[in-house]
Amino acid sequence: MQFELTEEFIEQIEQYISNNDGDALKGLLHGFHFADVAELLQELNHEEATYLVKLLDSEITSEALMELDDDFRERILDNLSPSEIADELDEMDTDDAADIIAELDDHIQKQVIDHIEDDEHAADIVDLLRYDEDTAGGLMAKELVRVKETWTVAGCVREMRRQAENVTRVHSIYVTDKHGKLKGRLSLKDLLTASERTHISEIYIPKVDYVNVNTEAEDVARIMQKYDLEAIPVVDDEGILVGRITIDDIVDFIKEEAEKDYQMAAGISQDVEADDSIFKLTKARLPWLMIGMLGGLGAASIITGFQSMMTTFPKIIIFVPLIQATAGNVGVQSSAIVVQGLANNTLKGNIITRLLKESLLALVNGIAIALVVLVISHFLFFTTFLESISIGIAIISVIILAALIGTFVPIVLDKRGIDPAVATGPFITTSNDIFGILTYFLIAKLILGF
Amino acid sequence: MQFELTEEFIEQIEQYISNNDGDALKGLLHGFHFADVAELLQELNHEEATYLVKLLDSEITSEALMELDDDFRERILDNLSPSEIADELDEMDTDDAADIIAELDDHIQKQVIDHIEDDEHAADIVDLLRYDEDTAGGLMAKELVRVKETWTVAGCVREMRRQAENVTRVHSIYVTDKHGKLKGRLSLKDLLTASERTHISEIYIPKVDYVNVNTEAEDVARIMQKYDLEAIPVVDDEGILVGRITIDDIVDFIKEEAEKDYQMAAGISQDVEADDSIFKLTKARLPWLMIGMLGGLGAASIITGFQSMMTTFPKIIIFVPLIQATAGNVGVQSSAIVVQGLANNTLKGNIITRLLKESLLALVNGIAIALVVLVISHFLFFTTFLESISIGIAIISVIILAALIGTFVPIVLDKRGIDPAVATGPFITTSNDIFGILTYFLIAKLILGF
Repeated sequence: MQFELTEEFIEQIEQYISNNDGDALKGLLHGFHFADVAELLQELNHEEATYLVKLLDSEITSEALMELDDDFRERILDNLSPSEIADELDEMDTDDAADIIAELDDHIQKQVIDHIEDDEHAADIVDLLRYDEDTAGGLMAKELVRVKETWTVAGCVREMRRQAENVTRVHSIYVTDKHGKLKGRLSLKDLLTASERTHISEIYIPKVDYVNVNTEAEDVARIMQKYDLEAIPVVDDEGILVGRITIDDIVDFIKEEAEKDYQMAAGISQDVEADDSIFKLTKARLPWLMIGMLGGLGAASIITGFQSMMTTFPKIIIFVPLIQATAGNVGVQSSAIVVQGLANNTLKGNIITRLLKESLLALVNGIAIALVVLVISHFLFFTTFLESISIGIAIISVIILAALIGTFVPIVLDKRGIDPAVATGPFITTSNDIFGILTYFLIAKLILGF
Repeated sequence: MQFELTEEFIEQIEQYISNNDGDALKGLLHGFHFADVAELLQELNHEEATYLVKLLDSEITSEALMELDDDFRERILDNLSPSEIADELDEMDTDDAADIIAELDDHIQKQVIDHIEDDEHAADIVDLLRYDEDTAGGLMAKELVRVKETWTVAGCVREMRRQAENVTRVHSIYVTDKHGKLKGRLSLKDLLTASERTHISEIYIPKVDYVNVNTEAEDVARIMQKYDLEAIPVVDDEGILVGRITIDDIVDFIKEEAEKDYQMAAGISQDVEADDSIFKLTKARLPWLMIGMLGGLGAASIITGFQSMMTTFPKIIIFVPLIQATAGNVGVQSSAIVVQGLANNTLKGNIITRLLKESLLALVNGIAIALVVLVISHFLFFTTFLESISIGIAIISVIILAALIGTFVPIVLDKRGIDPAVATGPFITTSNDIFGILTYFLIAKLILGF
């Protein structure tokens, strides 16, 4: 069943496009899944992609457009007229259509909305534009199957048939009172087994999970994951059913969040991709490099403070990079585990226990590393006994210190309501660099007494 | 609708457990969602949790058990008899039950299976044990609604009612031929609108996505995401429908994969949690620290080689930590972006273009950092003109070099079929430390000519 996009196929498509051979393209791409069309579009330049979007059926291209990178989609839409964009939106679910409209320039938005054929669809889209994109309202779609508690099973099935026309997939059947307030849901199983004259009020399940339009997207994701929901209804402050969120939107949301955390840990402060412009990439990367630079300058000050060692104990100086690397690595490990624990809510016990455990773990790792370094420094770098002891004790101390900082900082940030993920990566590495090198020199000074 | 687990509530529960007051507990926890029960269990110690699992209805606890951490669940199961475990499995979907059985010791497995009441359920579970856990077979469940193409709509609805008893949620209705070969799927909408005497063969949709039992889990996740599927049927090599995979399992899989990548980038080589034993955490963390240590020792050798500078140009030495930090940070940024691009299949163009772009980006960042350092080193650290120039040029070169290594290594690993994520974190930091410091000294030597 798997579709494989080959070089030859892409060349063939490009050939047809440059020949303006619409019929051949339609024939070649007939029956293609929208996700495969999206993959193909992504391989073309934006003029070629625009050509295909105009050529192919909106039923396919509307869904394919939603799968594209934001930047690439924007460039295609720039080449479409308001009425062509409206054709695409006509085929989209309201949540996707609202996302697209929100991306357009203000003066085009109104023109596009005016061109949407289905007035109800257009009104739904406009309604969705009110909500913040990071809330349940921003994620939800208007398409859902709703039945009233006063209906009979027969009337319900009739009404469902009508509604299902506009709904791609029936996730759940929601039951409301006559004012539209969410009352519960109807299981398909019960609908199938009940007699035609039964009233919905007798068979619906009054227990239903829901979220408010203003619930934050992150909480919606957490709730849907926790309760294994495939769809969740959204209500307004009066309890009126206004939309539903499906799991596929949440899957995308989870992936984006994971990517943001990953980038944050790598010292990239915005959501960027390898293909973004150099300006955008610099904006996301340079600030973190500057933090690292400040750390490096801090370390330079510390070494300057202990500069006399360059002549008295030059061998202490040559192990500075080792201390720095170890402090950075331990800090990142500790903070990453804590950040994940916080995100997954699996961090048990109080902060003191956690710090004690982390210290013990650091002690074990520290002794292991220190022993190896002790032997190597003595036999390969010919350090004196006291120098070796200084280095060994410093490594153990630095590892413990780095582990404590790496554990403590994210927990404190989280308690203060700041995303602990900012504490990973360059931030923790940089502070550990400075504290690590300072500790190293202080211990060396104490033991060697220069 | 949100459930909030308070300290007082947990204390209350613990109190009832220590008083052995089963009735009070049942009353207090009546109507609780399994996910909330799981959250509660996780807050108790394993004896208390075991008490609750034995006390409460298996319909709830079986699902709650699936939500627990593996280690914690194992400790609870250790306290249950084979027949008590079988009671839980009786209520579980076959995929979950098979996962649990696989976790048990060999001699208990057979006893538990013998105690499962429903023979068909037991046979299905045993069948699932054959498959590797990282394949479609290992993810799939046996519960699904299947109809034969020769049936009428009326017969189909009758049969569906029967089958739906065992299926918690009807995701899709699959159509097979009389030998059980997957032919297509049936849309609920079409079933609702067709007349009772229509044959299924006239209304089913012959186009259906599916995977083979041996398809790798990662590919299943990719396919389900790409095509926005909520469930996918699984067939064996003969095309016989043998099971189905639902999106909630895939959501868990995606989360686990994202966490693994995150940990890998942080230098943690196994799937560990903050609450794991010190031994397990050490095993996951120490190897990476050793790699970092080797890097540090390598850097020590390089400085030893340029040791004369400590007396001739001590100011060059004090900027070693700055060079090292910058090289490490740039390398991690570059590799993270490439690793994500590879994972998402969004990396366009060939490797030469990519390296050129990365070089240009590094040049921009490098000049920015170098200018700041140039000014600070000259005015605060009183470096000479030539020393400042050496440091500035070295920073630019090191940033470009680190960016190239960070970009090149993951792409090459990926081309060779190795997970590029191993190249992030300590690995790239360590190699960049060494190359960075070496480059720095070589440039300083060239310009200062010591």
